[in-house]
Amino acid sequence: PTQDPSFLLPLPKPDPATLVFGKQFSDHMLTINWSAADGWETPHIKPFQNLSLHPASSALHYSIELFEGMKAFRGEDNHIRLFRPMLNMERMLRSADRSSLPLFDKEELLKCIKKLVEVDQEWVPFSQDASLYIRPTFIGTEPSLGVSPTTQAMIFVIVGPVGPYFATGSFNPISLLADPSFVRAWKGGVGAYKMGGNYGPTIAVQSEAVKRGCQQVLWLYGEQEEITEVGTMNLFIYWTNEKGEKELFTPPLDGIILPGVTRQSLLDLARTWGEFKVTERTMSMKELLGALDAGRILEVFGAGTACVVCPVGSLLYREESYQIPTMQNGPDLAKRFHKELTDIQVRARIMQDGNRPCRSAASGALWRPRERPFYNLALNTF
Amino acid sequence: PTQDPSFLLPLPKPDPATLVFGKQFSDHMLTINWSAADGWETPHIKPFQNLSLHPASSALHYSIELFEGMKAFRGEDNHIRLFRPMLNMERMLRSADRSSLPLFDKEELLKCIKKLVEVDQEWVPFSQDASLYIRPTFIGTEPSLGVSPTTQAMIFVIVGPVGPYFATGSFNPISLLADPSFVRAWKGGVGAYKMGGNYGPTIAVQSEAVKRGCQQVLWLYGEQEEITEVGTMNLFIYWTNEKGEKELFTPPLDGIILPGVTRQSLLDLARTWGEFKVTERTMSMKELLGALDAGRILEVFGAGTACVVCPVGSLLYREESYQIPTMQNGPDLAKRFHKELTDIQVRARIMQDGNRPCRSAASGALWRPRERPFYNLALNTF
Repeated sequence: PTQDPSFLLPLPKPDPATLVFGKQFSDHMLTINWSAADGWETPHIKPFQNLSLHPASSALHYSIELFEGMKAFRGEDNHIRLFRPMLNMERMLRSADRSSLPLFDKEELLKCIKKLVEVDQEWVPFSQDASLYIRPTFIGTEPSLGVSPTTQAMIFVIVGPVGPYFATGSFNPISLLADPSFVRAWKGGVGAYKMGGNYGPTIAVQSEAVKRGCQQVLWLYGEQEEITEVGTMNLFIYWTNEKGEKELFTPPLDGIILPGVTRQSLLDLARTWGEFKVTERTMSMKELLGALDAGRILEVFGAGTACVVCPVGSLLYREESYQIPTMQNGPDLAKRFHKELTDIQVRARIMQDGNRPCRSAASGALWRPRERPFYNLALNTF
Repeated sequence: PTQDPSFLLPLPKPDPATLVFGKQFSDHMLTINWSAADGWETPHIKPFQNLSLHPASSALHYSIELFEGMKAFRGEDNHIRLFRPMLNMERMLRSADRSSLPLFDKEELLKCIKKLVEVDQEWVPFSQDASLYIRPTFIGTEPSLGVSPTTQAMIFVIVGPVGPYFATGSFNPISLLADPSFVRAWKGGVGAYKMGGNYGPTIAVQSEAVKRGCQQVLWLYGEQEEITEVGTMNLFIYWTNEKGEKELFTPPLDGIILPGVTRQSLLDLARTWGEFKVTERTMSMKELLGALDAGRILEVFGAGTACVVCPVGSLLYREESYQIPTMQNGPDLAKRFHKELTDIQVRARIMQDGNRPCRSAASGALWRPRERPFYNLALNTF
C-alpha cells in the first residue's frame, strides 16, 4: 500500500474561538525514559502517538503519577514565552520525590520542553485570548505489582492549544458547594503535591455540586471547617478585616493546599503593590459567613493556570445559599490581577508598580518585579 | 519473514518456590472496553501484551483507576477455585462508582475472569503453597485533560503465579513504624475504596519505615492516634479486654479502612466459632500501649489476600521500641485462622465448627459456614 501523504503533514490548527480545554493536541510529544539500571535515557521528540505500557505499570495500579500545567503565550511581538516555568519544574521535582519517582535535572527538562514548543510553535495560537497548554507528566512504568519504589519510569510532555477561559473582561461568576462531608486533602497526606490521586476522587464530588445547582466545590477542612481551595484552583478573598483594613487573604501552604504558580504570582504582585495587607492564614466558614453578613467581603475568586482568576458569586452551605458581592465590587481586584498577568504574559509588559524584589515562597528565589518574569522562546535563547 | 513458532507456545512455568509477588504473568489477559457512546464492548481474552493508551488518558493524569486482588487455588483434588470472589466484584463496583467510572455487571465480569483462569489454568501452581494471583484493573482512558467524568474506560485483568508469603507454619513476625505524622486516609476521603491513589503515597512512607529499621507502617489517625491498618493489610488484635474477656478486635469500616475480604472472612470465622468476643471498634495508641504494658495483648497481626495473616512482633513509636508477644503466644489464633482459610481454599474443606449463618458486612449477603465459600472452576460449572 502507498503511504498516505497526509501522515507527513501537520494537523490543521483549530480556530482558537472553538477550543475546548485539553481535547486538542499538537503534532509532537516529548518522552524521556528512566530505569534504575541505566538512569535517564536520551529525550525523544516524536510524532504524537499512543503510549505502549505494560499492563502491570505502577502508574495504572498504584497511581505512581504526577503532572504539571503551564502555558506558552504568543506575545504581541510574536515571540513565544513561558510564564515562570521554573516554579513548575520545582513543584514537579517535589512531587516526584514524594512519589518515590527518580529526581531529574530541572534545567534540562525545561530545555526539552522549550524544544518541544519550538518544534510545535505553529500550534501556539495567534491570539491574545488563547495559548498553548503544556502538560508535563511523570509516570511509574514498573512492570510488577509489588507496592514498592519503581525501577522504571517515564516523563512525557504533551501540548495543545487552549482557548480563553473567559472572553476578555467578561468574568462569569461561579457558584460553589461548601459541604464539610467531602474532604480533598488532609494533614499528613499529599494535598500539597500535584499527584494524580488528588484529582480522581474530586470528580464525583464535582458531579454532586452540579446536581445541587453549583458549578464548583469549595473544599472545607477539619472541625473548624477551614476554607481551603475551589475546585482545582487556589482561593483568594479580598475583604475589610476586623480592624477595618483592606486585606487580601489566601489559605497558607500548610500541607493541604496546592502551591499554585498563579497563587504565588498574585501574592507577589499584591506585595509589590503594597497597597493593602496580604495574608496567608486559615479562615473558618463561620468567620467567612460572619464577615459576609457584616458586608466586609469585597471579592472572592479562584486562581489557577487555566482561568488566571475566576470570580465567585455565591455559596451553597448547609442547604442555604449565600450571595457574594464579587461582581458588584467590579470585581476591581480580580480584574486588575487578570489584566496585570495578561500584560506580562501576552504583552511582555515589565511590571510598572514598585521595584522591591519579592521572595518566592515556592522556589525561595527572588523574583524581581522589574525583570521579565518569563522565558523568551525566541530561537536564539536556547 | 517466517513467524517465530515459539510465539505460539505458552511461556514456561516458573518453579513455585522461586516466585516473587507480582513479577510473573501468564500467557493471556482479559480486556473489556467501554465508551459513553457504545457502552460495554465484547470482552476479549488475548495474548498478554502492552496496552496502547492515549497519552492524555485520565488514568495517567488524574488517577482514574482502581483494582482488586484475588487468588485462584489448585485444590488437593486438582480442582481450581476462587475464594469468595463476589466480595471482590462488589468492592470493585463500589470503587467504580466512587471513581465516576461506569458500572458493570458483577456476575458477567466474574464469568469473564473465570474464563481467563480457565484458559491459563496451567498457570495455577501445582502446589499447596502457591496460587494464581488475579488482578482486575479498571482505568479511565478518556483522551482529554479536563477533570471530568470519563467517556472512555477499560477493564483489564492480568494473572500470574505467586509463591507462599510464609513457608507453612513458620510465620515471620514483622516490626511496625507508628508515626502520627503520616496519614493514609481520612474521613470524607476515599480510604475505603481500592483506588490507585491510596497506594502511591504509601511507598515513600514505607521507605521511611525501612530506614528506621521497621518492615511496615502502622497507620494512625486523628488526635487520638487511632490505629487503623498495617501497610496494605487490615489489622487485628487479640487481647484480654478491661473486663477480663478474651476479645478479637479490628478497626471498624468507618470510611478510612479498606474493607478487606480476608478481614471479613476472619470476622465471619471468629463469630461462627463463638469462642471469644469479636469487636469492630477504634482503639487509640495510648490504649494499645496501656494494654501492652499490662500484659493484656496476646496477638497482633495483619490480614490480607497476599499473606492471609501476618504476625506483628514489635512497634516503633516516638523513638521507642515496644515488643509485642505475638510469637510467644503461638500465635495460636493467627495460626488457626491461617490453617482454617488454607483448608477452605486449598483443601476445599467445609468448615467444621458451628453452623450459624453469618451476615457479610461487605455484601449484606448471608455466608453459611457449612456451604463451600468458593466458586468451583471445574469446567462444567461455567
